[in-house]
Amino acid sequence: MASRRPTLRLFAQCRTKPQLNHTWTPRRAASSFQSSGSARQAFSNSRNYLTLAAAGLAVATTLGYKMAVEDPIRCDSPTLAERDQQIKREKGVNDASPMRLRMEKFVKEQQKEIVRALEEADGTPFRVDEWQRKEGGGGITCVLQEGKVFEKAGVGVSVVYGTLPKPAIIKMRANHKNLAQEDDIPDSLEFFAAGLSLIVHPKNPMAPTVHLNYRYFETANPDGSSGAWWFGGGSDLTPSYLFDEDAIQFHKSLKEVCDAHDKEYYPRFKKWCDEYFYNKHRGECRGIGGIFFDDLDETVSDKENTFAFVQDALKSFAPTYISIINKRKDMPYTEEEKRWQQIRRGKYVEFNLVHDRGTAFGLNTPGARVESILMSLPLTARWEYMYEPAPKSREARLVEVLKNPKDWV
Amino acid sequence: MASRRPTLRLFAQCRTKPQLNHTWTPRRAASSFQSSGSARQAFSNSRNYLTLAAAGLAVATTLGYKMAVEDPIRCDSPTLAERDQQIKREKGVNDASPMRLRMEKFVKEQQKEIVRALEEADGTPFRVDEWQRKEGGGGITCVLQEGKVFEKAGVGVSVVYGTLPKPAIIKMRANHKNLAQEDDIPDSLEFFAAGLSLIVHPKNPMAPTVHLNYRYFETANPDGSSGAWWFGGGSDLTPSYLFDEDAIQFHKSLKEVCDAHDKEYYPRFKKWCDEYFYNKHRGECRGIGGIFFDDLDETVSDKENTFAFVQDALKSFAPTYISIINKRKDMPYTEEEKRWQQIRRGKYVEFNLVHDRGTAFGLNTPGARVESILMSLPLTARWEYMYEPAPKSREARLVEVLKNPKDWV
Repeated sequence: MASRRPTLRLFAQCRTKPQLNHTWTPRRAASSFQSSGSARQAFSNSRNYLTLAAAGLAVATTLGYKMAVEDPIRCDSPTLAERDQQIKREKGVNDASPMRLRMEKFVKEQQKEIVRALEEADGTPFRVDEWQRKEGGGGITCVLQEGKVFEKAGVGVSVVYGTLPKPAIIKMRANHKNLAQEDDIPDSLEFFAAGLSLIVHPKNPMAPTVHLNYRYFETANPDGSSGAWWFGGGSDLTPSYLFDEDAIQFHKSLKEVCDAHDKEYYPRFKKWCDEYFYNKHRGECRGIGGIFFDDLDETVSDKENTFAFVQDALKSFAPTYISIINKRKDMPYTEEEKRWQQIRRGKYVEFNLVHDRGTAFGLNTPGARVESILMSLPLTARWEYMYEPAPKSREARLVEVLKNPKDWV
Repeated sequence: MASRRPTLRLFAQCRTKPQLNHTWTPRRAASSFQSSGSARQAFSNSRNYLTLAAAGLAVATTLGYKMAVEDPIRCDSPTLAERDQQIKREKGVNDASPMRLRMEKFVKEQQKEIVRALEEADGTPFRVDEWQRKEGGGGITCVLQEGKVFEKAGVGVSVVYGTLPKPAIIKMRANHKNLAQEDDIPDSLEFFAAGLSLIVHPKNPMAPTVHLNYRYFETANPDGSSGAWWFGGGSDLTPSYLFDEDAIQFHKSLKEVCDAHDKEYYPRFKKWCDEYFYNKHRGECRGIGGIFFDDLDETVSDKENTFAFVQDALKSFAPTYISIINKRKDMPYTEEEKRWQQIRRGKYVEFNLVHDRGTAFGLNTPGARVESILMSLPLTARWEYMYEPAPKSREARLVEVLKNPKDWV
């Protein structure tokens, strides 16, 4: 194929450095964001290091795997990961830094912030597993299990450096024309992906489960400058018992953030969320929605403004959710209500394992860090044959709303 | 396309009878195999009738759906289902009847037999949901939940009549050349499928979960005689705590049945089982295996002998499993051991929802009877982040065997 980018092609084809594919090395096996001295559980099996972090970044993980398989020969040019290490060392990360470094810094700060807020609400510290990836990047998975308020909460950050092989570039061009020119698709492209994922399953059946994910993806030009880029993300609420005021508060908070950036965002992303988190075989949505978006690139808005939107959306999460949790965490409940929560948890598991594209990509990626992907599953779940809530009960009303998503604001 | 089977093509193209696709009507909402007068739970929601039974017959279900979508025009020729109704009415079912009717009769008898044996072991009656399908065929789903011995047990029979559209015929010809001649593939082919599926999850963590499925598939020639045919099935054991003697007893029983018919069956089907029930993302088998086979047709053995093998295999199930259960059901266990069972249950759910082809087909089939498909899920399951059994513990030994399947006989 004729190429007008000889430099890139040379760069892509001449990498030979032996790479330990999918290999992560632990930085701190037992660490805390708050007190580095506090004892935390250590990794119990070294096999778990030898994997690729995929939590919340399943697409990037898949690409990372393809890269590993098809990674070509290397010569002297530094990789994007190496360039970024150098930038961080020499200049640090500030508003003038490349977006990928700003996003990484931002999601790591937010992870700390959210973990701190959830720890405060629960009174129990998170377990923190941090590791680095040989090729560059790494991940931090924070999990709180069997706390006072939360049955299970996972907050994960992943940073992935990799190389897109040509077939992946061709596929991605369907949504991102500026990845490469149609008549000049390179044999490979370096990419970067970073994101934050979280799921919180509270103990009290009156308190809703929540999920959030924000991520950034970009490719590198041969000179190391940013090529194509896009943001994706959103958050959604899954109650077992529906309190309209919680649904309204959650959606109102998201709408305010969206409206401050683009009045079209909220209606578009609300609908997208209802469509994405649809448990097709049950004919109902996973929960009462929120927002979901993907491929937010220069065809929608510029990079600075989109980052500002993502920042605002992510920062708005903890105050809103913690406020809802504080209203619900100590409410009285019956054994029957706990049982209903467990049945709803079962349907959450069904969505995540049967329909969620991110989970499927992650699990089908050889070498993925399965425990980081499946931190999204609840601690416990229940399946009762032919269980149907009583007509006109609170449980039946929830199902009715899941079958016919409402406009909350 | 030129056709040397004008009769068949005419038959296939001239069916117009309006059909209520995927619609089942209940025969007995609350019935019992043993005492028709005993009170059983009734269907709690009539919506559940209006579905297609897919339990254990996901492939047939998928084909049934395709049929519904593409079902062509009908004139006077009776359907296969109508012909079979007539045969049953006029002659009953005996050894001279078509294999499809013998297999249907056999799995229904076996379902009663197995349900009776499990009820006896538990002391709790099954709930029995029986229904008929407008187009012919029907299903019976029997579930025991929260019994004394079994946490959840489901035994389901499905009988499906449908029509394979041309693309499905072409696809199936990959494994079954005698479905149609390569240069004369008809536009459609009537088919029949019947099978029995069961899963039993005991309460006691020392007692193993078991799964079994035997099924028969055939297509009809234009004159109603049998066309292509094949059997599939198998059974496999999933302990939380491994008792070698149970694994040996289970495999020995299967090997004896296999060996009586063909010495090559057991080694071949044992390997096939280990490969099929492989929980890929966990890098371990679902359980300690058993046998699994598919596409057992005239290239392997004749129809009579294959049916005889399937009969022996299915009939050997209850005595073997009940004998294992009776040894384990009253063993003492700790809370920690129950917890380990729940964690293993979580991995069972993962296999069934992520990797099992039958479940995936079923759930992705619009109108499938989801509750019959998902009766396979345990009542309760658990996911703990980074849980690893202690080195050299009984739990660790189980995992070791799941990672490296053993030869038990």
